Amino acid sequence: MKFTWPVRVYWEDTDAGGVVYYANYLKFMERARSEWLRALGFEQDVLRDEHQIVFVVRRVEVDYLAPARFNDALEVAVSLKRIGGASLVVEQTVARGVTALIAARVTLACVDAAQFKPVKIPAFILSALEPAP
Amino acid sequence: MKFTWPVRVYWEDTDAGGVVYYANYLKFMERARSEWLRALGFEQDVLRDEHQIVFVVRRVEVDYLAPARFNDALEVAVSLKRIGGASLVVEQTVARGVTALIAARVTLACVDAAQFKPVKIPAFILSALEPAP
Amino acid sequence: MKFTWPVRVYWEDTDAGGVVYYANYLKFMERARSEWLRALGFEQDVLRDEHQIVFVVRRVEVDYLAPARFNDALEVAVSLKRIGGASLVVEQTVARGVTALIAARVTLACVDAAQFKPVKIPAFILSALEPAP
Amino acid sequence: MKFTWPVRVYWEDTDAGGVVYYANYLKFMERARSEWLRALGFEQDVLRDEHQIVFVVRRVEVDYLAPARFNDALEVAVSLKRIGGASLVVEQTVARGVTALIAARVTLACVDAAQFKPVKIPAFILSALEPAP
Repeated sequence: MKFTWPVRVYWEDTDAGGVVYYANYLKFMERARSEWLRALGFEQDVLRDEHQIVFVVRRVEVDYLAPARFNDALEVAVSLKRIGGASLVVEQTVARGVTALIAARVTLACVDAAQFKPVKIPAFILSALEPAP
Repeated sequence: MKFTWPVRVYWEDTDAGGVVYYANYLKFMERARSEWLRALGFEQDVLRDEHQIVFVVRRVEVDYLAPARFNDALEVAVSLKRIGGASLVVEQTVARGVTALIAARVTLACVDAAQFKPVKIPAFILSALEPAP
Repeated sequence: MKFTWPVRVYWEDTDAGGVVYYANYLKFMERARSEWLRALGFEQDVLRDEHQIVFVVRRVEVDYLAPARFNDALEVAVSLKRIGGASLVVEQTVARGVTALIAARVTLACVDAAQFKPVKIPAFILSALEPAP
Repeated sequence: MKFTWPVRVYWEDTDAGGVVYYANYLKFMERARSEWLRALGFEQDVLRDEHQIVFVVRRVEVDYLAPARFNDALEVAVSLKRIGGASLVVEQTVARGVTALIAARVTLACVDAAQFKPVKIPAFILSALEPAP
């Protein structure tokens, strides 16, 4: 199961090397994760305000395979790989057509919105992430 | 009275046109305003947490005179132009040596940190802004 | 004639005040201008590579009327106000539903891609900007 | 041998969670790498314009240990771990006083500035990286 989200490269995303600046792919990946959660039925401001939880990044590994350039139309993907009690691991890619540009692995922790301490992922989220067989 | 703050141009600041992206000068200007307030004795996290006030931008006018490029060493200036009951007007410039790159005018409002409603600038800040004659 | 473009507010756009950081609205406005040019038939990488021209911002005036927050669905508008020989003036707004958040006026200059010197806006662009009566 | 560079957290760096946005630590790390190269005697615009080389990031691994907040004074470190023919591996940390916030490992490739194809690291750079015994 893979969720994908389109991202257009604007001037803001590029640098004087003529390519997308390396940190900005992490913005693209976060947008795709936000839209993936929305597609599953979860608005993060509601999760924060009504359930006092936020998903934060604990670890990223990113391989930069090929550069994106100004005006490129990209596709950012999210695949859920592992569900822990208080964490998730997703794999993400950024591609331009059939060309893979980025391959990444992101560990997300579920934390309380005030103290950023780890908390268990609520059951109503787990059940959306783990579709019944 | 003019306060100045040095800013180095890194890759993150530039775009594929080979110059600093136009929105990023507003980051440089905000850094200089933050350091100007610090030089006057005010830490903005203390202002927010202990005095419940934040300074927010109400209006900016920016003239882009010449581009900055990767690796440039810039100087960002702040000059206080007007003090109102709940607002300040500052003029700001960004320069590379004797070359003016940016000329700007920024209106700041003093607001309460929770609702962003205008509040009077506290007397202890006004007295620091208006040195005795 | 008003062109509009949707923008979603992600974590990257916000700051610790809980609102969209003031410089980031200039990114939203540039995205809308890029999409407006695309809707008129112009890809900026083609303009740069085949016609050696780039549109750069010469001046912005921005009034910050109300803050956008995380997860907001915004609409960014572009209206052409004036056409000069080597420049354009557009008015732009950012709104959340019927609530105006930003009102801006942006002066764009047509420059050569190498030296950033002003050049006349090519006739094929002018004719697209000025629809026949 | 460890090179360190101070970074102040401004509003631009934070997000509505009240902490530094996760992608922005990669900006901090790139600033420290740029200053490390400068301290070794290398200006990247000179490397690009006169030697036609650019260092680009091939891979990053980042562990987010604790969040930085608005106004924090951080220290970003760079330690060279491995020198290959056309690549370098550095370890980087971001700390606030004695508290480690970020631990990262970054692989940099030396590429030609036009095509981004790998090229050997020039001898004059290698000799600066590998001090004589």
